[in-house]
Amino acid sequence: MTAAVQVFHEQGVEKTTLGDIARTAEVPLGNVYYYFKTKDLLVEAAVDAHGSQLHTLTAHLDELPDPAARLRALVAGWVDQRDTAARFGCPFGTLATELDKRDGGPDQATAKVMRALIDWTESQFTQLGRPDAHDLAIELVAAYQGMSVLTHTLRDPDLMARQGRRLQDWIDTLA
Amino acid sequence: MTAAVQVFHEQGVEKTTLGDIARTAEVPLGNVYYYFKTKDLLVEAAVDAHGSQLHTLTAHLDELPDPAARLRALVAGWVDQRDTAARFGCPFGTLATELDKRDGGPDQATAKVMRALIDWTESQFTQLGRPDAHDLAIELVAAYQGMSVLTHTLRDPDLMARQGRRLQDWIDTLA
Repeated sequence: MTAAVQVFHEQGVEKTTLGDIARTAEVPLGNVYYYFKTKDLLVEAAVDAHGSQLHTLTAHLDELPDPAARLRALVAGWVDQRDTAARFGCPFGTLATELDKRDGGPDQATAKVMRALIDWTESQFTQLGRPDAHDLAIELVAAYQGMSVLTHTLRDPDLMARQGRRLQDWIDTLA
Repeated sequence: MTAAVQVFHEQGVEKTTLGDIARTAEVPLGNVYYYFKTKDLLVEAAVDAHGSQLHTLTAHLDELPDPAARLRALVAGWVDQRDTAARFGCPFGTLATELDKRDGGPDQATAKVMRALIDWTESQFTQLGRPDAHDLAIELVAAYQGMSVLTHTLRDPDLMARQGRRLQDWIDTLA
């Protein structure tokens, strides 16, 4: 599964074969087929894996006592991945962008993961006493997705570092 | 070319065949092959077409006397496309996201178009007397790309309408 998430991130879904994933995982192709009969089933599992990763991340951030510190740590985590983002984009955002051209299946699964990130972010702003918590959450998540697209298109990790600092300052003004 | 840009937007590049484009353009497949021997050549031409469209758009906006009005009109144009964005994402951003997984070719062409949009936007903020014109331009273009990813993933055109109003208000505070 880790190999699938990585290869989908690096190559995109359409370009990837089950063989690519078997090679990266260093397992025989038959093993991949044993668990996933089709690429679509593997794609579904990859979206679920992003959901689980997000759950693990937010559970970890929830250990911080202060909601503003949690939001700052979320942004810091994104900025830490800026070199990978410059080469391949946001692991989840680019997957969603590719799958959401389709209809009635993977696009609903990606929406669920994106909504989980927005909901967690909104809950932090609510704990900061902000009545506009939902709008602020949309703004923060959109800012991350936008800076990822620009960092990726311009191959410029510094862009993400600068935009990350701007978001940190913005969180401070709201806290 | 119009058909190619449309089909790449709706299906993504990897999923699209020259046959799909011929069908949409209602021309024989041979005609497409006559001008474009490979899909890569057609992809290059599609990126150039986005560059030309952007040039036409900004030349049109430049006719407005006031730089703030030009920026507001830019945002209004994005919001007008919100139903298409909810179904297929930003026509240029999703193309760049897909092509930028590759290296040394189409990714440089997409960077050039993205930079042209940022440069034009920066020039408007400079004319508004903002010393931080470059950062503001990055912020506006990133905000658009980010709201496009969320609108697309959540299939929610209203999200783009609301974020567009927020950007309009933000431009007003800077003007």
